[in-house]
Amino acid sequence: MPEFFNVLPPEQAFATLQTYLRSMVGSDVIPLHDSLGRVSSKNIVSPENLPGFARSTMDGFSVLARDTFGASSSLPSYLNLIGAIQMGERTSLSIVSGQTAQAYTGGMLANGADAVVMLEHTQILDEETIEILRPVAPGENVVQVGEDIRKGDRVLSKGHTIRPQDIGGLSALGITSINVTSMPKVGIISTGDELIEAEKTPQLGQIRDINTHTISNLVRQSGGIPLNFPIVKDHLSSQIETATEAIAQSDILVFSAGSSVSNRDMTADVFNSLGNPGVILHGLSIKPGKPTIMAIVDGKPAIGLPGNPVSAMIVFGLIVKPTIRFMLGCIDSPPNYVTCYASKNIPSQSGREDYIPVKIVNQGDKFLADPVFGKSNLIYTLVRADGMVKIPIDKGGIYEGESVKVFPIV
Amino acid sequence: MPEFFNVLPPEQAFATLQTYLRSMVGSDVIPLHDSLGRVSSKNIVSPENLPGFARSTMDGFSVLARDTFGASSSLPSYLNLIGAIQMGERTSLSIVSGQTAQAYTGGMLANGADAVVMLEHTQILDEETIEILRPVAPGENVVQVGEDIRKGDRVLSKGHTIRPQDIGGLSALGITSINVTSMPKVGIISTGDELIEAEKTPQLGQIRDINTHTISNLVRQSGGIPLNFPIVKDHLSSQIETATEAIAQSDILVFSAGSSVSNRDMTADVFNSLGNPGVILHGLSIKPGKPTIMAIVDGKPAIGLPGNPVSAMIVFGLIVKPTIRFMLGCIDSPPNYVTCYASKNIPSQSGREDYIPVKIVNQGDKFLADPVFGKSNLIYTLVRADGMVKIPIDKGGIYEGESVKVFPIV
Repeated sequence: MPEFFNVLPPEQAFATLQTYLRSMVGSDVIPLHDSLGRVSSKNIVSPENLPGFARSTMDGFSVLARDTFGASSSLPSYLNLIGAIQMGERTSLSIVSGQTAQAYTGGMLANGADAVVMLEHTQILDEETIEILRPVAPGENVVQVGEDIRKGDRVLSKGHTIRPQDIGGLSALGITSINVTSMPKVGIISTGDELIEAEKTPQLGQIRDINTHTISNLVRQSGGIPLNFPIVKDHLSSQIETATEAIAQSDILVFSAGSSVSNRDMTADVFNSLGNPGVILHGLSIKPGKPTIMAIVDGKPAIGLPGNPVSAMIVFGLIVKPTIRFMLGCIDSPPNYVTCYASKNIPSQSGREDYIPVKIVNQGDKFLADPVFGKSNLIYTLVRADGMVKIPIDKGGIYEGESVKVFPIV
Repeated sequence: MPEFFNVLPPEQAFATLQTYLRSMVGSDVIPLHDSLGRVSSKNIVSPENLPGFARSTMDGFSVLARDTFGASSSLPSYLNLIGAIQMGERTSLSIVSGQTAQAYTGGMLANGADAVVMLEHTQILDEETIEILRPVAPGENVVQVGEDIRKGDRVLSKGHTIRPQDIGGLSALGITSINVTSMPKVGIISTGDELIEAEKTPQLGQIRDINTHTISNLVRQSGGIPLNFPIVKDHLSSQIETATEAIAQSDILVFSAGSSVSNRDMTADVFNSLGNPGVILHGLSIKPGKPTIMAIVDGKPAIGLPGNPVSAMIVFGLIVKPTIRFMLGCIDSPPNYVTCYASKNIPSQSGREDYIPVKIVNQGDKFLADPVFGKSNLIYTLVRADGMVKIPIDKGGIYEGESVKVFPIV
């Protein structure tokens, strides 16, 4: 079993992991109204023109545009009103030059009409005669057939995350079910002799498990399905037993162990026992988060997060979340940071990426990023923070007032 | 029934509405593991110190710091190793000056110890003798009792939206259920003689309903519960009947009607028939989105959105979403825009706020906001967009290359 003790920056580490991953774990057909946040597994092409008929964008009168050319308040065009087209009605009303028909916002034009004059630019002389006070160009105040989307056009791409407007757009085309990718199942195991369940009262020397709870909710937020397994003690055979069960039920395995060398070694042994090639990376060049392990076991990723809850969340955001998104088949990567200004100097050590939790403070029309300094084993460091500032590997720190990108914690 | 035909900018309009609203519609106690994204309805105070015992942050040896003062590689301190404290074990091991005990990351220190020397800064001479090669200060490599959070400290404030780290922090304190605010129910009614359900095939002159689908998913995204009602024709009595039923079951009523003057008048009549004071605002000084109606009916907000799907989504974001968040009791308002640069000139008319859909284009290390021009009745304008640029009321437009804030569409 090859084991590479290389320490990589997170982007390179994920790129390495990615070469082993399947980009989609499966797909399902689901009702459109349940698809918010899911990822489309196929390109979708429009089955029809939208709208299917030319629609008025104004209340007014449908006309032949050329009948209005030159019209003005002092020299109006006079048109013969031959009827009205009620909303939602299929019309048999046709106009020829010199005629007009009443049109409503969203409704059809009379057959033969190529523009609509707004009600405000007309005067109704009597039941049969309308004065047109301004000219309209052909197509003015009209949505043309297929102007929203044309038959055969791409509606959504494979890999797109479904938003409310997408559901609206598909509904408009009569598409009421959708092919989406399956949500990757993520098996989550916290290990440690000192850990107990949240319901229990710790004895001296014991602490309640945090990582199972943060990680399962991060998985949910990232579009995966968390499968929580019971806490496992620091015994190799128990860990292998639970990990074997977990990986069989999951697409991704996430382990969180203590940060001590012996814990890291045990996690590596567990991953190597699960399948090939086993551990492919042992360490990230970041702080906090260095003691991270990545493995591939028979095609499935297994990620050993640091045991410290702050480090675990940061590494989740850098490695596990992109793994879930990739296995979801997701191609979107919208920018997700806010530009803020450092409230004070933030020191950093070059040669590694530093991640500093910050609180965002509203100051007039700009936002300050106020660092929340705290050890990486203190979960309340993140409870008190709104986001993270990344200090690049080649940068010695950030000066007060410098602009920084604040990313969500995950 | 007072009816104010004032046209207000969205912020003022919402501020007006807000004066009539209850800030919480109710509260529930739910299991912590179901609380992601919910809003806490009470302040939460820590019932205990976290951690409850001093913990080592390193693998090494717990010591009395003063025993290490002056230690160096050339002149180490020699300490007598009297045992090890296993992880998760309550220890009875005590040290006095001249003694040390093995400590593990996350584990207890020996009684009497006030610091930990990292394994890397020691040398094990024999089973009983440890060389200390560097001094440590009191408290070094130790997390003190209550350093994460102290008994009696505020853990979370009322009105906070629950994130993964909050669930982790509460779990660490043994808090496994939580008081959260009730999710406001939002009754949604689309009206229009031309509308048909998405499953049906439109005849000429008919179109499929879009707004019920976009709005119900926007409600979900905003933290509310959508209640969809059937499409209602443009008949006053049918609209009053359905609206009466909907408002009885809901905390908020959202109507979407055509943009024509007659439709707006009918919505105003419906709202005025439901309760007092009735319509309080008739129009927003924005484009698109002007034909918006706001009412209060016996304490509940009723909002008439423009019928055009783009306008409806924009006004949802400006009026309905803040209404839902306010009624959720939510106090968080994190910045949610991305700074981009305009890819071309974007004209605007002063005297109103303009909202321009944009596509975000990655260009090297910055993002361009590329306007997606399209009529407000074309849903695919928003399907093709990633966000919105707001052009303030007093600004004539935006120049190419100018920095702009891009907000999510809702």
